[in-house]
Amino acid sequence: MKKSNILLLPALLILAMAGSAEAESISSPSGNFRLETGVDETGTPFYSLDYKGRKLVDKSTLGLVADEAAFDKGFVIAATDTVSVDRSWEPVWGEYSSIRDHFKELALHLESAPGTERPLKMTVRFRLFDDGLGFRYELPLQDNANYLTLRGENTRFELGPEDATLFCIPGDYDTDEYLFSETSFDKLGEAMASYRGRHTESQAVDCLSVQTPLLVKTAAPVYVNIHEAALDGYPAMLLDADAGARSFSAHLVPDRLGVRGYLQLPFNTPWRTIIASDDARDILASQLVLNLNEPCKIEDTSWIKPMKFVGVWWEMFTGRQKTWAYSDDYRAKPGVTDYSSLPSNGRHPANTANVMKYIDFAATHGIDGVLVEGWNEGWEDWASFRKNRQFLYDRPYPDFDIDSLTSYAASKGVKMIMHHETAANAADYERQLERAFSYMKEKGYDAVKTGYVGAIIPRSEHHTSQWMVDHARHVIERAAAHKIMVDSHEAPRPTGLCRTWPNWLAQESARGGEFESMGGNPPSHTCLLPFTRLKGGPMDYTPGLFETDLSYYGEGKTDKAGTTLARQLALYLTMPSPMQMACDLPENYERFADAFRFIEDVPVDWSDTRYLEAEPGRYITVARRDKASRDWYVGAITDENGRRAEIDLSFLPAGEKYTATIYEDAPDADYRTNPQAYRIRTATVDSRTKLRQPLAAGGGVAMRLQPK
Amino acid sequence: MKKSNILLLPALLILAMAGSAEAESISSPSGNFRLETGVDETGTPFYSLDYKGRKLVDKSTLGLVADEAAFDKGFVIAATDTVSVDRSWEPVWGEYSSIRDHFKELALHLESAPGTERPLKMTVRFRLFDDGLGFRYELPLQDNANYLTLRGENTRFELGPEDATLFCIPGDYDTDEYLFSETSFDKLGEAMASYRGRHTESQAVDCLSVQTPLLVKTAAPVYVNIHEAALDGYPAMLLDADAGARSFSAHLVPDRLGVRGYLQLPFNTPWRTIIASDDARDILASQLVLNLNEPCKIEDTSWIKPMKFVGVWWEMFTGRQKTWAYSDDYRAKPGVTDYSSLPSNGRHPANTANVMKYIDFAATHGIDGVLVEGWNEGWEDWASFRKNRQFLYDRPYPDFDIDSLTSYAASKGVKMIMHHETAANAADYERQLERAFSYMKEKGYDAVKTGYVGAIIPRSEHHTSQWMVDHARHVIERAAAHKIMVDSHEAPRPTGLCRTWPNWLAQESARGGEFESMGGNPPSHTCLLPFTRLKGGPMDYTPGLFETDLSYYGEGKTDKAGTTLARQLALYLTMPSPMQMACDLPENYERFADAFRFIEDVPVDWSDTRYLEAEPGRYITVARRDKASRDWYVGAITDENGRRAEIDLSFLPAGEKYTATIYEDAPDADYRTNPQAYRIRTATVDSRTKLRQPLAAGGGVAMRLQPK
Repeated sequence: MKKSNILLLPALLILAMAGSAEAESISSPSGNFRLETGVDETGTPFYSLDYKGRKLVDKSTLGLVADEAAFDKGFVIAATDTVSVDRSWEPVWGEYSSIRDHFKELALHLESAPGTERPLKMTVRFRLFDDGLGFRYELPLQDNANYLTLRGENTRFELGPEDATLFCIPGDYDTDEYLFSETSFDKLGEAMASYRGRHTESQAVDCLSVQTPLLVKTAAPVYVNIHEAALDGYPAMLLDADAGARSFSAHLVPDRLGVRGYLQLPFNTPWRTIIASDDARDILASQLVLNLNEPCKIEDTSWIKPMKFVGVWWEMFTGRQKTWAYSDDYRAKPGVTDYSSLPSNGRHPANTANVMKYIDFAATHGIDGVLVEGWNEGWEDWASFRKNRQFLYDRPYPDFDIDSLTSYAASKGVKMIMHHETAANAADYERQLERAFSYMKEKGYDAVKTGYVGAIIPRSEHHTSQWMVDHARHVIERAAAHKIMVDSHEAPRPTGLCRTWPNWLAQESARGGEFESMGGNPPSHTCLLPFTRLKGGPMDYTPGLFETDLSYYGEGKTDKAGTTLARQLALYLTMPSPMQMACDLPENYERFADAFRFIEDVPVDWSDTRYLEAEPGRYITVARRDKASRDWYVGAITDENGRRAEIDLSFLPAGEKYTATIYEDAPDADYRTNPQAYRIRTATVDSRTKLRQPLAAGGGVAMRLQPK
Repeated sequence: MKKSNILLLPALLILAMAGSAEAESISSPSGNFRLETGVDETGTPFYSLDYKGRKLVDKSTLGLVADEAAFDKGFVIAATDTVSVDRSWEPVWGEYSSIRDHFKELALHLESAPGTERPLKMTVRFRLFDDGLGFRYELPLQDNANYLTLRGENTRFELGPEDATLFCIPGDYDTDEYLFSETSFDKLGEAMASYRGRHTESQAVDCLSVQTPLLVKTAAPVYVNIHEAALDGYPAMLLDADAGARSFSAHLVPDRLGVRGYLQLPFNTPWRTIIASDDARDILASQLVLNLNEPCKIEDTSWIKPMKFVGVWWEMFTGRQKTWAYSDDYRAKPGVTDYSSLPSNGRHPANTANVMKYIDFAATHGIDGVLVEGWNEGWEDWASFRKNRQFLYDRPYPDFDIDSLTSYAASKGVKMIMHHETAANAADYERQLERAFSYMKEKGYDAVKTGYVGAIIPRSEHHTSQWMVDHARHVIERAAAHKIMVDSHEAPRPTGLCRTWPNWLAQESARGGEFESMGGNPPSHTCLLPFTRLKGGPMDYTPGLFETDLSYYGEGKTDKAGTTLARQLALYLTMPSPMQMACDLPENYERFADAFRFIEDVPVDWSDTRYLEAEPGRYITVARRDKASRDWYVGAITDENGRRAEIDLSFLPAGEKYTATIYEDAPDADYRTNPQAYRIRTATVDSRTKLRQPLAAGGGVAMRLQPK
């Protein structure tokens, strides 16, 4: 049931004189935040934000600039509207069964000062929540601007004067698969320079720039997450840093002609978001980004089903010379070559017999789905990335008997998950899209993992330029029309659009678990992602890595994952996703069958969530209630330092006893030296229990709490 | 019935030494042409071409160059194959019911000279016909090159040493809607410079460049048409001129990153074609370009039906302030604006009542179809061309009742023709393509006119760059899958692909009849198009203009068409197309109903064709036999000078009498002063008749010959 409580305050009309600064202000419902906004002496709009009586964002400019018109100065305030809203809504899936959307809104209606030759109009709409601020530019229909060739925004975030701790990755038009830097304004230049050349797909930005979601910890400290919500029909936003001024400014991703976007009015930009609190847990709990997105546009959502899955994937990553490709003939050409005439290379795990083993495994362990990568024609040479046709999405390799696999999976109650790697050829993916989705449905597939590795085609575009943002939305809409769920990799970073399109179950859009086989992820990485990347939506991080020593696979592999085994279980709580992988090989799960039991049990959809402890890059402890039962689950992780998690179970219903099954690091566990040492024990707990749970260095704990 | 007579000559293996020039030669079946080819001292492949014992193309280099490998020097001849072929095939529609494909072929197999570090392989395949030469590069699978980032071709056409007359339009990446220059090498620079700024959509080339099909008249004189056949997966070719050397070299259209194409081997380039004869009529009769294209790829072609059509189109061109747009609100936004809430501008001819009049007219006069432009949402601001979404292809304007119009047309035996203007947003057209074609079929449409006015989106592309060539092929293939016939405007110029995809009935791809309302086309223009543009395939020129004085429409219009009325009838013979418009308004046809009778009668598909007289830019006289009857039709046109056409009817079956209905210029007709003066008379003729038919200045004659 939705609650709605909208208080309309009387609109306040201020007809102002040009050249005189004016300001308006509102406070958040609880009074924690106070926003001031207005225009300065040059008619430039600005805002500032106080938190608990102290300046959080200093007076910062607003506006945007196009070839045809400049919406960044010469304005007066024509009118303001304020409204208070308190309502709630029910997501199709997620961390909560109901989400409160409670804010004070201020719409600043700007017009060019009297006497301007070609007067313009713009509204800046602010929504001030108890966990932060969102604002966007609304460009209404108007006489003197209809089309905009967008050159940039004048949106700034003045965080000075004190230095702050910044958790960030470098600005880049084409990838976000980076480890975070923990740095400061003073050291930001050095930190960002150190990334040069570290990612083959990087199209790094010329200036000192970082990506959002950016996490800032001020001297106070206040934790601040800066991001955007509802990125649609517009380029993604990076943040250019002025390190001396302790400030950031919006940097819109251009196309290769240098244009940031092509707009027809009316148009509303994405929301620029600032989530802030002096309690780090509030950053994790914030639903501000989802609240700023449009309600669900899919009428019947009954076919959207959160799921866990295993996949023919890690085999290729871990070595053993296994390949996505069926043959070693790198000259094979989809649609031209008769693949059945090519000899198999014998190292192609996406073959019928092997996939059947994954189906068997999934069926035995109650895992919903099996993802198979490397099933279709085109992988032999896919690293070349320059072809106008790389893959066909309706041509299985000769050793992948799609019909019998679908039947076999169906007979076992398992769903097959399709893979559509595009080699970043979004143009050709669109060319094949309807056929690809129809083929999926013909073959009984309801979910697809998409991928965009490489340089984008159309060659005018970047991964996060306006056209690609449009492309991503197009794919999601067409998928919804076909009742297909999507997990997209290398797509524009999420901004809460999964509220509007809940078939967009997950995205990668950050450095994921796969990097444990490519240099490793330090334990701090997953203590940061929930503060940053996850504020846009769920991540397909691919947890569940039990064999953390990649030398297990021979072939000269030396990678060691930055995790204990118990911590991998905890990730199912700290990295929630409605499309959650168990990434490791069945053989490794069979070696640790008692631990795998947790992955079998853990839900992927929740009715309630409580963040119990949190410090960015250090530790996270969270409790979640299963949407389908009365069970609670708790997960806690730490960085490279061991610690004692303080787990207060007061969220349990008073007076009720629960059996806790605890998957914990063994006393001698350490992610570097003894990662697979874990223990499983049970305990009886209730709402008065306060567990003091030791976590190994790089370790974690996972618990299931069942009512007795 | 197909005849096939293939003689395999023994392959000749020549293992040659590096550094020594070698050559091979073949002659055309009749011996008219002699080709010499080989490699010079630097291992650069070359060819030369003799015609009737005289040099036509001097020794000219061959080859292509990519970032990864250079296929233009260091070669030796590894082997040669020759074969003689004599076969015929039956086109689905066209000028002939059967086409003879008769040539001597020489395949020059090149390999890098012994000792080359990374040896390459390339075959140059020549087909020498009695009407000219085709050759292409075949890049086989090989060890040292698999992907090519193409930078250009080294293909040259050395036409010196004497100067020649050139009939050409300027090199341009984005438009071919130009009048021809009749010039010479010496004056080419001046002639091409005069085009600057004459076409708003021009993306003119930096160097001295012309487009194909290019017509050259040598001093001899020999008439030479240079073009290409089977342009597929490759950029279009312009010709750069070296005026001093009297030579042309291939200039491949780049994308905006400067790359000419992205190839995966094996790959065969389009054929480069040289049609030549000392009799200008042979250029018109040549089927060389079609012969070099692949056979039809559509199995069931029964749904492909040549047709005549009228259209709601000229009303908008001629003024009277009529518009493609439904409303005057240029801010309307397809998919966002509720068009039914907008007031109609009252000047929108694509409305139900008006379209019904066209349907009535077509039904009354036996015209097969009615094309309606401006029927769908998006026209209000379409001249802005920069939006990521301009049109929707399944949203009729509120005053266009598509269902009742389809029913009404069906009840009258008339087919509706859809219009898909894309504003050059090929990317969004692909996004909507399946839906658009499905919608057409749902609504009973079997044919579509497409358009690409403006700057291409994807913004990395030009109208004729590789990606757009791919796009055009994709649209045709998808149309074929939906059993849809296509008439494409502003698409890459045709190269005979209509043999392979006979649902590609016509293209614009040149300056068409619409320009009679935008400055006019001189009479010589249509005396040149059949020698140039039409060698690639039929043109949707839109003949049938009866009201040649545009001041008829008021609104300050002063344009006068470069034609008499009788000449407009002749164009149905001299500009043959299986999708042929009668462009004028029903009201004008009703004013000249006796003349319109010819348009009612004239077929659009032929079993035989005889070119009786021809001189480029001066005059053309042609006779064609109806595919569906024993009737012959004759058409003759002249340039701005009156002349007497010599029409030798010896093609008629001996001894049979025919009634000729002759639509001729009146004695006092003149395209400048008295264009609408025509006479219709009948005569009895037979195979011994030689008509001496006067044509007015800018005039013509059209005849129907029916067996008595």
